[in-house]
Amino acid sequence: MSNKKDKVISSAVIRRLPKYHRYLNNLLESGVERVSSQTLSEITGFTASQIRQDLNQFGGFGQQGYGYKVETLRDQIAQIIGLDQPRRVAVVGAGHLGVALANATIFKRNHLEMVAVFDINPDMIGTKLAGTQIYSMDVFEKILKEKEVDIVTITTPKHVAQKIADRAVASGVRGIWNYALVDLKLPEGVVLENVYLNETLHVLVYYMDHPKDYKDNGGIHRTTTE
Amino acid sequence: MSNKKDKVISSAVIRRLPKYHRYLNNLLESGVERVSSQTLSEITGFTASQIRQDLNQFGGFGQQGYGYKVETLRDQIAQIIGLDQPRRVAVVGAGHLGVALANATIFKRNHLEMVAVFDINPDMIGTKLAGTQIYSMDVFEKILKEKEVDIVTITTPKHVAQKIADRAVASGVRGIWNYALVDLKLPEGVVLENVYLNETLHVLVYYMDHPKDYKDNGGIHRTTTE
Repeated sequence: MSNKKDKVISSAVIRRLPKYHRYLNNLLESGVERVSSQTLSEITGFTASQIRQDLNQFGGFGQQGYGYKVETLRDQIAQIIGLDQPRRVAVVGAGHLGVALANATIFKRNHLEMVAVFDINPDMIGTKLAGTQIYSMDVFEKILKEKEVDIVTITTPKHVAQKIADRAVASGVRGIWNYALVDLKLPEGVVLENVYLNETLHVLVYYMDHPKDYKDNGGIHRTTTE
Repeated sequence: MSNKKDKVISSAVIRRLPKYHRYLNNLLESGVERVSSQTLSEITGFTASQIRQDLNQFGGFGQQGYGYKVETLRDQIAQIIGLDQPRRVAVVGAGHLGVALANATIFKRNHLEMVAVFDINPDMIGTKLAGTQIYSMDVFEKILKEKEVDIVTITTPKHVAQKIADRAVASGVRGIWNYALVDLKLPEGVVLENVYLNETLHVLVYYMDHPKDYKDNGGIHRTTTE
């Protein structure tokens, strides 16, 4: 499912899609089959008109008065995000963070297959992490190509992250999920999403000392990724 | 260091502070003592005027023409964020993610002392994680108060996160760093910062299928937390 052709979807809207997906998923798990935009508004904290406006950017969904069919809307939003298509992901770095991500259900849940893990530790190479083989960085390009990896997750120290990203991109990878605290430079056509845990912690600390700023910026209702 | 009294600092500015801190820290590590706002602009990707404007919100720093003294500015930004003050943090959940955070340098680096870890697994309780004692949730309130914990990091399954947050808040905790994929409800005076890894992955996947949106929203230069 693609958005209306010549329209740019703003970053704010794109970052709300995963939230809609989550809320709808939760409704579905609770056995709710149909939801009005009013109820969706109460659950999400976004206004009903904002929700309608967001969804309309991707083509009309549901019917005013009758509300939305939860499962249909959930699946449509999954399609908009691209979760309906299987993708292959590799994790670079089998340290604590790599282990945490590999063992979480986060990839499987999102239709992403973890097909390879990479590390430089000889004791780890050849063993498995959460059922997936750990390879040496010596065969990085080879394995990425063989396994047709779409997304590389970087959990390495920051000083090697750019080099790894460059090698991944040269091997056909088109998405980088980066946890290394460094600004990666990537060519056009490659998508970068950074998870800078350190920076979210700084924001938390700042707001703890500045309750007025916190309140004025929306408090717990602010979207932290906006 | 506090901001000018009656002025609200926008979320966007607050989220840039950690970046300034990081860039200045990197400059300092590279032995750079003085930097112009022009050079800072090239490194950060923010315009020189934006940087000056951001810093001016917290009182003037540096001198135009002479630029900024890197160490002084780094320390001033650390002070603005609140990193100069020691705080105590607890981690709830000694699963893979809890282990990853406990073993990272992220707390120490930010002047946060990890004083307690909590879990419900009897095999873990009484053992140590990264040098810190793992306690039972039965003594959650008691330990939080005794150790004067400021920030609780929640890495538990989502269905218990709200209850944990409520208990933490009732025990005097004023900051919640939440990794559970749930919208916590917290009273005024408590700061919440969510790290929804699942949602950053959705954004990555969306942009991989929508290169035009990615480009129009700033590509790798977009601030992912804005």
